[in-house]
Amino acid sequence: MTDKAFQDFYPDEFAHCYGCGRLNEAGLQIKSYWDGEESVCRYTPEPFFTGGFPGYFYGGLISSLIDCHSAATASAAKLRADGFALGEKPLSRFVTASLKIDFLKPTPMGKIIDLRSRVLEIKSRKIIVSTTLSAEDEIRAKGEAIMVQLPENR
Amino acid sequence: MTDKAFQDFYPDEFAHCYGCGRLNEAGLQIKSYWDGEESVCRYTPEPFFTGGFPGYFYGGLISSLIDCHSAATASAAKLRADGFALGEKPLSRFVTASLKIDFLKPTPMGKIIDLRSRVLEIKSRKIIVSTTLSAEDEIRAKGEAIMVQLPENR
Repeated sequence: MTDKAFQDFYPDEFAHCYGCGRLNEAGLQIKSYWDGEESVCRYTPEPFFTGGFPGYFYGGLISSLIDCHSAATASAAKLRADGFALGEKPLSRFVTASLKIDFLKPTPMGKIIDLRSRVLEIKSRKIIVSTTLSAEDEIRAKGEAIMVQLPENR
Repeated sequence: MTDKAFQDFYPDEFAHCYGCGRLNEAGLQIKSYWDGEESVCRYTPEPFFTGGFPGYFYGGLISSLIDCHSAATASAAKLRADGFALGEKPLSRFVTASLKIDFLKPTPMGKIIDLRSRVLEIKSRKIIVSTTLSAEDEIRAKGEAIMVQLPENR
């Protein structure tokens, strides 16, 4: 067992992402964890990440959070499917092949954002991840990402 | 005629977006222009916007650029479809209903990013915009956005 996040197990060379890299000091450094079959990530945005009008979230950040959390979920799901617990070996790194976001309602600033993902399919190096983004207990956006595992020895 | 960008004509109340708002001092302040039937936006990212490994772009930023440029393109296309030139009246503001991004190749850092959009459909308040994101003359990502016009008097 570990209380570390998925992203804490990325090899150093893959830990530079602006959204989720623990080595990117200017970045968002989001953190994802298992909660049963779902993965969760909680995040409160900096006040400058507004959308077109103040008080609401910038759509690009919604896409970014869903993207990074989906990638981490794919990595952790692959590790689990291979029979390992977090920390037993470094995570594989997945990159996004395709990302689809449906924006359902505006997302208010100043609230905790709750991301929850489920793995829909694991097929060799491809994993499909479905995500909801909520604030104040209402789903504000939904995402589906097709993630592809990078080769281990490049 | 004007050499101002689409985003320079957003009403002040809609000009706070982190990606494209001229009033967001911490933001990216991207700028979009007509080039015939296409709209273009050129952007060079700050060095901290790396993806998982250094030297390549953060996927979230690719989604963000396509999203903001598509929204501005929808606004400018609506104005043109209504028979006005840029500057003759304030732009309507469009928000994203749905965004689909296909990531085709890694996008290198330190290069000029070239976004080009075309309007696929204008139907009442809904506009569908198709976008390519290129670097070094190669398409790195493609996007399709369904944009919806905000009511003028809310």
